[in-house]
Amino acid sequence: MALKEKLKKLFSPDSVAVIGASDSFDKLGYHVMKSLVKGQYKGKIYPVNPRAENLWGIKTYLSLRDIPGEVDLGIIVVPAPSVPETLHECSKKNVKGVVLITAGYKEIEDSKGEALEREIKEIAGRYEIPIIGPNTFGFVNLTDGVNASFTYEFSLIKKGGVTLISQSGGFCHLCGFLAMEERMGMAKLMSLGNRVNVDFPEALSYFGEEDEATKVIALYIEGLDEPRHLFETIRLVGQKKPIIAYKAGKSEKGDSASRFHTGSLAGNYQIWKGALRQSNILEVTSSEELIDTAKALDICAPLKGPRIAVLSGQAGPGMIAADALEDGDLRLARFTDKTQEKINGLLPPLAIRTNPVDMGPAWYSPETMLDILKMVLEDKETDGVIFIAMFASANLEVTRTMEGLMENIEPFEKPVIACFTAPSGIWDKEITRMDGKKGVAILHTPERAAKAMANLWKANLMMRQ
Amino acid sequence: MALKEKLKKLFSPDSVAVIGASDSFDKLGYHVMKSLVKGQYKGKIYPVNPRAENLWGIKTYLSLRDIPGEVDLGIIVVPAPSVPETLHECSKKNVKGVVLITAGYKEIEDSKGEALEREIKEIAGRYEIPIIGPNTFGFVNLTDGVNASFTYEFSLIKKGGVTLISQSGGFCHLCGFLAMEERMGMAKLMSLGNRVNVDFPEALSYFGEEDEATKVIALYIEGLDEPRHLFETIRLVGQKKPIIAYKAGKSEKGDSASRFHTGSLAGNYQIWKGALRQSNILEVTSSEELIDTAKALDICAPLKGPRIAVLSGQAGPGMIAADALEDGDLRLARFTDKTQEKINGLLPPLAIRTNPVDMGPAWYSPETMLDILKMVLEDKETDGVIFIAMFASANLEVTRTMEGLMENIEPFEKPVIACFTAPSGIWDKEITRMDGKKGVAILHTPERAAKAMANLWKANLMMRQ
Repeated sequence: MALKEKLKKLFSPDSVAVIGASDSFDKLGYHVMKSLVKGQYKGKIYPVNPRAENLWGIKTYLSLRDIPGEVDLGIIVVPAPSVPETLHECSKKNVKGVVLITAGYKEIEDSKGEALEREIKEIAGRYEIPIIGPNTFGFVNLTDGVNASFTYEFSLIKKGGVTLISQSGGFCHLCGFLAMEERMGMAKLMSLGNRVNVDFPEALSYFGEEDEATKVIALYIEGLDEPRHLFETIRLVGQKKPIIAYKAGKSEKGDSASRFHTGSLAGNYQIWKGALRQSNILEVTSSEELIDTAKALDICAPLKGPRIAVLSGQAGPGMIAADALEDGDLRLARFTDKTQEKINGLLPPLAIRTNPVDMGPAWYSPETMLDILKMVLEDKETDGVIFIAMFASANLEVTRTMEGLMENIEPFEKPVIACFTAPSGIWDKEITRMDGKKGVAILHTPERAAKAMANLWKANLMMRQ
Repeated sequence: MALKEKLKKLFSPDSVAVIGASDSFDKLGYHVMKSLVKGQYKGKIYPVNPRAENLWGIKTYLSLRDIPGEVDLGIIVVPAPSVPETLHECSKKNVKGVVLITAGYKEIEDSKGEALEREIKEIAGRYEIPIIGPNTFGFVNLTDGVNASFTYEFSLIKKGGVTLISQSGGFCHLCGFLAMEERMGMAKLMSLGNRVNVDFPEALSYFGEEDEATKVIALYIEGLDEPRHLFETIRLVGQKKPIIAYKAGKSEKGDSASRFHTGSLAGNYQIWKGALRQSNILEVTSSEELIDTAKALDICAPLKGPRIAVLSGQAGPGMIAADALEDGDLRLARFTDKTQEKINGLLPPLAIRTNPVDMGPAWYSPETMLDILKMVLEDKETDGVIFIAMFASANLEVTRTMEGLMENIEPFEKPVIACFTAPSGIWDKEITRMDGKKGVAILHTPERAAKAMANLWKANLMMRQ
C-alpha cells in the first residue's frame, strides 16, 4: 500500500483503536475516547485496555490482536517505554497508520528520550507505518467527523476548506479556538509533533494533492533540519492551492526554544523569510492574520486586481479601512462615471459619495445598500469590495433585512469582505448565517478586513507566477 | 461660570432636557430617551416635545421654558433649521452645555449647511455655551451613568479608566463594541462631531485635568485645521496621564474623505507622525491595538524596564509571544540563578525551563503555575510577565483554581498580561472575574498581549521625558 493510501486510511479511517483507552478523567486515554465518542465518529471504535472490559459503553479489548475486525488507525497514549512493543503489535494487526500522542522523546532533556525516539523511528521505518507524532495532540478531520485528539471541543469548529498543519499542538488550540470565534470553516487540523516519519512535506503533499476538501493550507513552522524538501513540496502544491505560512522562533531566544520544543533549530529567520518569499507562499505574522487570510481565501472569489471599493455605513470605519488597504499595496477604486452617477442618485448630498462611500443616509434602507454593492461590483474599475456597518440602536434590523435580500442574488464573482460590528447577542445569528454565503467573508474589524483583502491580492500574484 | 465648570455640568449633569424627545422608533429622539431611561440615568429627565404630554412615562414639556427646574445638559435632536432658535432658548433657560446630535451642517455638500453652522457657532460663542457637535452621536459617561447618545447599548460597557475622544461616531461604535468584547473598562466616550466650540484641546484638558475617573486617554483623529493647539495640550496633559492616538486619513484618498466627513483636511500623515512622536503620545495603528493598549495602561503597573518573562502552558504560543516581544523592542529576561534553580525544581526536565518557560508539566497544578509566576515577578532581572494558557479538554478547571489562588495574593507591582484561550462558554466567567484584578490584564492572543506590553514600555519611556 502506497504512503498516500495509508495516509488516507489514517486521516479518514473506517475503524480506530485507542491503545490506552480510559474512563478516568486524569488520563489522556479518557480525553481521546471523549473526542471520538462525543465527536460522533461514525466508524468502529475499539478501546484497548488490559484492565477493562467496557469503556464509554463500548466493548474493550485486552490487546490489539484481540480485536476481531480491521484497524485503520491506532491512537497510542500508553507510556513511552511501552510504545515500541505497541508498534510491533500494530504491524502484526496491519494497522494502516498511527497517532502517537505519548510524549517523552527527543524533546526531553533526558537522553533516554532520544534513544526511545530512534527506536520507534526504526520500527516505523521497518514496517512502513506512518506515524503522526510522537508528542502531538493528534489531528481532527472535520470533513469526515474524526476527532483523533485529546481535545473534544475541536469537533465544534465549522466545517470548511482550511487545513492547518502545525508544528505545535498549543498553536492548534489557539487557532482552533480563534477559528470558532471567527466562524472559519476547517477541513483538517493537525500537529506534527516530533515528526518521526510524517513531516511537513508528507502532510502538505497529502492535503494538497489527495484531499479534495482542503482548499487552503496554513502551515505553522517552528524549525526544520532540512527545509529544502519542504520548499520543493510547496512549489508543487502551491500551484494548486494557496499556502499560508506563519514562522515562529524568529529571534535568537525563540530559536533556542524551538530546539527544546521540537528538537529542531528554528534557523535564521532572514533566510526563512527569503525562502518563503521565493516560494508560492504567503507569509502571515500573527495568528489572527492567519485565520482572517485563510478564511477569505476559502470563501471569496479571487482578487484579480488591486482596485478596491470601500462601502461603509459610517465614514470613520470606512476611512481606517481605506488606510489599511493602501498599507497593503491596494488602492481605492475610482468608479466609472456611470457608477458614480448612480450612487449620486441613491445617496443624498449629505455624505461622501466617492470611494470610500459613506452609506450613512442609506442606513435605513438595506435595499439601497445592496443596490450600491451590486452596482460597484459590476463596475469594471473595481476588483473587490469592503463592506462595513456598525450597529446603532436605530438600525437593529439592518442585517436581518440584508440577509433576506442577499438570498435573492447570485454569488459574487469579485471578493467581498464585510465587517458588521455590534454588541454581543445583537447581530450574532444573522452574521453566522450570512458568513461564507455568496462569496462574502465576514471579518472582525475594518482593518482586519482590509489586511485580508491585501493578502488575497498577494495570493493572486503568487498563483499567477 | 468657567468653561471647565460648564463642562462638568455637561458631562455629569444633574438634569437633562431632550429637545425633540419622541416615542417613535424611527426618530433619534426615541433612541436618546431610550439611552437615558434604559441606561438608568439617576438625574432628572425633561423630555421636550410640543406635541406630547408624556413620553417614556415621563412628564413632557412643550418647550424648554416650561421646565420648572434647572437644566444642566440639553440634548438637541430637532432638524437643523430649528437649532438656532433652540439655542436661544437654551441660553434663556441657563442650560450649562449642549449635545447637538442634529446633522446637516458643514459636512454636507449644500452650502446652506455651512451657513447654518456659522450661525450656531456665533450663537454658542455669544452665550458661551459649550456644544458637543453638531453631527455627533453624543457622549457616554460610564462613571456616572449618563448615556447622552443615540445608542443605548454603550451603557453595557464595563466601568473603568479609559476615555475615548473621537472625531467619528462610527469609530466610537467600533471601539465601544470591541471594548465590550475585550472587557475594557471605560470612563467616558464621545464623538466631537463638527467641533463648533468643543474640540480636541478642550475635551483633552477637561478629561486630563478635571476628571479623576479618567486614567488613560485615547484619541481618534481624522484631521484638524490647527493641530498646534492640540499638541500644546497633549504636552501638558501627557505628563499626568498616558495618551494614545490613532490617526486616520493617512492616504491621499483618506485625506479627501476626511474633508467631507468632518470638514477638515487630514493633513500630510508624515508630518502628523513626526508631531505625534515628538509629543508625549503613543501612536497605535489599529482599533484593536488601541483597545489592548488602553486596557493594559489602565489595569497594569507601569513597565519600568524592557526585560520580560514569558510563562506559557504550551510552548508554541509562548514562542510567538516571545517573537512579538522582540518585534516591539522588548527582550526576554534572563532569570537569576536562584530563580532558574527554583523553576528547575518545580518543573521536570521534560520542558523548556528557561525563558520562555513551557509550563506544560505544571498544567494540572495551578499552585505550581502561580508559584512560578510569583517567583519570576520577584526576580530582579524581570520587569514584566506574559502569562499564557490554552484550554484543552483535560484542564477544564484550571482557570477556576487559579482564580481562587489569585484571591490570596497581593496586587502585582510589575505588569502581568495574560492570555487564556478557550472555546466560547468554557472559561468565560472565570476570565471575566479575573480580568483587571491584582493588576492582571487579560488580552485576546499571545501576539496582542506582547504588543500591549511593548506599548506599556513605550508609554513609560514617554512619561519619563
